[in-house]
Amino acid sequence: MNSFGRIFRVSVFGESHGPCVGVTIDGCPAGMPLTAEDLLPDLARRKPGAKGTTPRKEADLPVFSSGLFNDHTTGSPLTILFENNNTRSADYEKQRAIPRPGHADFVAAHKYGGFEDYRGGGHFSARVTTGIVAAGAIAKKLLRGPADEAVTVEAVLTEVGGEADPEKGLQKAIDAKDSVGGILECRVKGLPIGLGEPFFDSAESLLAHAVFAIPAVRGIEFGTGFAAARMFGSEHNDAIEDASGKTRTNHAGGIVGGITNGNELVFRIAVKPTSSTPKLQHTWNRETDRIEDFSVKGRHDLCVALRAPVILEAVTAIVLADLLLIEQQRPRIWDDA
Amino acid sequence: MNSFGRIFRVSVFGESHGPCVGVTIDGCPAGMPLTAEDLLPDLARRKPGAKGTTPRKEADLPVFSSGLFNDHTTGSPLTILFENNNTRSADYEKQRAIPRPGHADFVAAHKYGGFEDYRGGGHFSARVTTGIVAAGAIAKKLLRGPADEAVTVEAVLTEVGGEADPEKGLQKAIDAKDSVGGILECRVKGLPIGLGEPFFDSAESLLAHAVFAIPAVRGIEFGTGFAAARMFGSEHNDAIEDASGKTRTNHAGGIVGGITNGNELVFRIAVKPTSSTPKLQHTWNRETDRIEDFSVKGRHDLCVALRAPVILEAVTAIVLADLLLIEQQRPRIWDDA
Amino acid sequence: MNSFGRIFRVSVFGESHGPCVGVTIDGCPAGMPLTAEDLLPDLARRKPGAKGTTPRKEADLPVFSSGLFNDHTTGSPLTILFENNNTRSADYEKQRAIPRPGHADFVAAHKYGGFEDYRGGGHFSARVTTGIVAAGAIAKKLLRGPADEAVTVEAVLTEVGGEADPEKGLQKAIDAKDSVGGILECRVKGLPIGLGEPFFDSAESLLAHAVFAIPAVRGIEFGTGFAAARMFGSEHNDAIEDASGKTRTNHAGGIVGGITNGNELVFRIAVKPTSSTPKLQHTWNRETDRIEDFSVKGRHDLCVALRAPVILEAVTAIVLADLLLIEQQRPRIWDDA
Amino acid sequence: MNSFGRIFRVSVFGESHGPCVGVTIDGCPAGMPLTAEDLLPDLARRKPGAKGTTPRKEADLPVFSSGLFNDHTTGSPLTILFENNNTRSADYEKQRAIPRPGHADFVAAHKYGGFEDYRGGGHFSARVTTGIVAAGAIAKKLLRGPADEAVTVEAVLTEVGGEADPEKGLQKAIDAKDSVGGILECRVKGLPIGLGEPFFDSAESLLAHAVFAIPAVRGIEFGTGFAAARMFGSEHNDAIEDASGKTRTNHAGGIVGGITNGNELVFRIAVKPTSSTPKLQHTWNRETDRIEDFSVKGRHDLCVALRAPVILEAVTAIVLADLLLIEQQRPRIWDDA
Repeated sequence: MNSFGRIFRVSVFGESHGPCVGVTIDGCPAGMPLTAEDLLPDLARRKPGAKGTTPRKEADLPVFSSGLFNDHTTGSPLTILFENNNTRSADYEKQRAIPRPGHADFVAAHKYGGFEDYRGGGHFSARVTTGIVAAGAIAKKLLRGPADEAVTVEAVLTEVGGEADPEKGLQKAIDAKDSVGGILECRVKGLPIGLGEPFFDSAESLLAHAVFAIPAVRGIEFGTGFAAARMFGSEHNDAIEDASGKTRTNHAGGIVGGITNGNELVFRIAVKPTSSTPKLQHTWNRETDRIEDFSVKGRHDLCVALRAPVILEAVTAIVLADLLLIEQQRPRIWDDA
Repeated sequence: MNSFGRIFRVSVFGESHGPCVGVTIDGCPAGMPLTAEDLLPDLARRKPGAKGTTPRKEADLPVFSSGLFNDHTTGSPLTILFENNNTRSADYEKQRAIPRPGHADFVAAHKYGGFEDYRGGGHFSARVTTGIVAAGAIAKKLLRGPADEAVTVEAVLTEVGGEADPEKGLQKAIDAKDSVGGILECRVKGLPIGLGEPFFDSAESLLAHAVFAIPAVRGIEFGTGFAAARMFGSEHNDAIEDASGKTRTNHAGGIVGGITNGNELVFRIAVKPTSSTPKLQHTWNRETDRIEDFSVKGRHDLCVALRAPVILEAVTAIVLADLLLIEQQRPRIWDDA
Repeated sequence: MNSFGRIFRVSVFGESHGPCVGVTIDGCPAGMPLTAEDLLPDLARRKPGAKGTTPRKEADLPVFSSGLFNDHTTGSPLTILFENNNTRSADYEKQRAIPRPGHADFVAAHKYGGFEDYRGGGHFSARVTTGIVAAGAIAKKLLRGPADEAVTVEAVLTEVGGEADPEKGLQKAIDAKDSVGGILECRVKGLPIGLGEPFFDSAESLLAHAVFAIPAVRGIEFGTGFAAARMFGSEHNDAIEDASGKTRTNHAGGIVGGITNGNELVFRIAVKPTSSTPKLQHTWNRETDRIEDFSVKGRHDLCVALRAPVILEAVTAIVLADLLLIEQQRPRIWDDA
Repeated sequence: MNSFGRIFRVSVFGESHGPCVGVTIDGCPAGMPLTAEDLLPDLARRKPGAKGTTPRKEADLPVFSSGLFNDHTTGSPLTILFENNNTRSADYEKQRAIPRPGHADFVAAHKYGGFEDYRGGGHFSARVTTGIVAAGAIAKKLLRGPADEAVTVEAVLTEVGGEADPEKGLQKAIDAKDSVGGILECRVKGLPIGLGEPFFDSAESLLAHAVFAIPAVRGIEFGTGFAAARMFGSEHNDAIEDASGKTRTNHAGGIVGGITNGNELVFRIAVKPTSSTPKLQHTWNRETDRIEDFSVKGRHDLCVALRAPVILEAVTAIVLADLLLIEQQRPRIWDDA
């Protein structure tokens, strides 16, 4: 449901126009130095402001409500809140009868009997990812370790609106008065060999699980991905070069048999164009039971992919931090075979 | 780890060359008629035999060890075993020093300290999917319901070795004396609106999680998938047409906001070429600590994608059966808003 | 860890002297009318004030941070916060070197490397049960159902300081300038037949699990309990009287084979005397590494059992609400045998 | 449901008169030497044969179906089967109309719609504990560690039929032609400080959870238990004596704040008298809808407590092995405070 992870366990709550959004992290080891400063850079990357992003402005200052003492984690659950201040709910009341195409309005009303908080997408809003980004910043710090060097996670936009240059892709959207999607690539360096738990908790399984929790994601591929389906086995196989497990090529994207193999982790995701396009659309009206013209109210991104890299890094770090804690727990108390 | 699902919970065990592989299903409702006959058609689809598949032959007769009484499920855990008879382990002893490229040999030896059962891939073998297919057949029966009509799950190969015609793609592999991959599409008709649990247990999240447990899968995309990243929002959005939620187009592939929307569920997966290619390869030898020539021993498929459709259907049905039971549990005891 | 339940899932967070304590409830069905008024009576029962309870005063006003809209549950996670205002942390700084007997000071410092928030017991404080009581009030409302009549949960003190009359037992403590314990009995009327999931999630297993999360509980017994071990089978067995499952006696306390049998659920728990007794004690001093005289600082209850009935009701209702949702989910789609 | 544990995860399956009972252990570390010999002593203790136990005889030879290779654990799921050979199902067919008092017959028929395997109690039978005892023997071996010395778990009968001498208590049952119950005490030496995870996964919570999965258990108490409710705080508190955490007394039974404190773990459980007493009883007949005389068919123990010590040890070891793996996982990567 709204929790993820086995040892490093992240739970989210909150709605777009409710009092706040937030996150609880259970199972974070005690003793990690942590202040708001650790979260602010990633939170800033998620915030709108740049061209093509929503005009809604929130301070996104993390309020630590539990689990922090003397600027260190305590081992108890960390709860972090973010107040919602800049809400304009009236925009949404007006269009309640019209389930917006591409949005969760229709399914949510069906699933929750009309009791869901529909303002600004409610719990389905990308605003909920604020807590994810906070948890991701903590997971990254855990992965980097005390020497701040172990594991690094970095996601970048490789395509916006079909263009390799994000600026150019965004301009297409502005020119067309429409929204666009994009493609992101995530790379993780420094991972140890051995993360991932067959059969069901393969590294790809858990990463994909977490990635598809991000709103608007439509696909994921590891290493060579879909292109691998068109290669010969002899081309695709990565020859191991030495005892460290380093391979000559990295078509596998750093995971073999569901387990990290010590090479760079590489995967890509596809983000659909923002459902809230400025273009006029047609959709069914619940009150009139007719197809009607419809134009989106509210404040929105022209391309949600623009703000997605830090969210992608966050879910990636959350998954890997959990797998790392699970793997470290596995005692090697008998000698190796 | 080796279990998946919240209410309809599937656990697998067994190794390629151990006494058996098997599956336990906990949480299957009582009273469903069930005999071996219900499983045989799907098990036959998973078995090799056709051109391009491994010459290893197993009877794959399901042995019900618990949870079945008078040919009906009892509500207690169902355990089903499949004996391994046709094993030729000596093939594997010889090449122990050489971690096969693309296989889990290297990571498994690292993770399990050399104690893993390496014969035929051990627990990493696709043979473990026999239990998955059995569980999938039961999940499908549950989804179809007593009237045998409710929900249908069907996966097909849409591409082998880069060719739309599987025969032609396989011939490429035979001609090149190499292995090839493929692409599969899965479609599910008859799903109710409302399956999927935000934030983390979106329908895509759980499907992707289960799909990446299948060996050799490198990518998944829902609906328009990666192509969505190159569309405008006004093109991609599916206009709702009436109160049933039916949409004019189905770019979303039947899931919006992580929740099924009553339209057909459509997604595709990419399967890499079989790692065990007949071609000569080079890889590191653990004993000599040198890069050496290497050619695969054992019996293998030229294209694992050929046998994957029924496995893909199985994990899909397992996920949907669980989501269906979870959704049905949600009481609507107060009137709708 | 800090979460409990499979469908109706309760998570707690917060420390005695941190900014707040709180609770998140995931999986609460949508559409239940809910306001602070629903929680206040139970919260008032948990608050100190009566003779023998701590002089610390907190308003305990629930702040709904998510999951509530138009005074109804939305189906999204409900987060409820309670501010900590009346903290006197200096009391605790002084005695940091002395792990208080009966308290978690020593084990917490060991487990969390000294990073734990030790002020007032931190996350081990009974103050964390405020969130439990709030979740319990919601679970009770769910169990009662829309007609406010279905299931009722009631816990009472049957013994304080060894006396059947709580007043008399408390007076013993006051006279002795010492703390005392007590025994509580919990009764649940109106439960349907069938709650509880063998093998491991028997109704007793889950109730005992939740009950031992309450600080200071040392024992639990169902029905005749420990006395059953001294009865003959013919005495102990409860004869079924009719098709409703009503039994002549109720030695089983309403659970047979781990499953509720439609009779009243009855169990008792033992609460140890408050560890913070006013009496002078001896314990090891971490700094001097010597056994020293020690007297408790801070504000405490003479008998924590006095405030425990509403907490016991809360965990009981939380367990039963979850089991009820799980049982309702079990489809009976094929005819009965 | 039928699984328990977070890292060392035990799942049971099987019925009293089905083909077999069994257990799967997921998460057992790789490299532990293991053969049937390791399980036989505990399995022998569970088997009947002594005076007062059922005449049903089963060989109880463990069949390792997965997870074992070269007499060592592999890190993959361990599945162990026990065939049922000595079944006399006809005894049960005859009395189908009469739900036996004290047994699960009535609730199971209600919960599973009559589809449950009712022969010999089906999945509710104590025969299912065979797999538990096997898993317990493995958990004990893990707790003892490579040097075979770390942690020891021992349970004994302290009372049978109200008598401290088990022989004398059993004779009471034989003389009265009735069944009796008993009390067991379990002691664990050598536990490290720090096992147990507040808030909900306290050591007592998990132990009680697992203990109440054992059929016929009616109560559990830790340390001084129910008697603690009648002590003063100054009497009950255990004074810490030195840096090892050793306490002068051990009223807490080795757990404080839900966490093991390095002292001996001590707890007791109450087992009800066997429901299948030889005495004539009265109960409702489903077919006639009348109260009728009834006498038990089948083969039964006069006192199930006699065979319970090894089962109690097993669930205790299973819980502690899991908590130990979880605690070892907790990295202490930053210096202590």
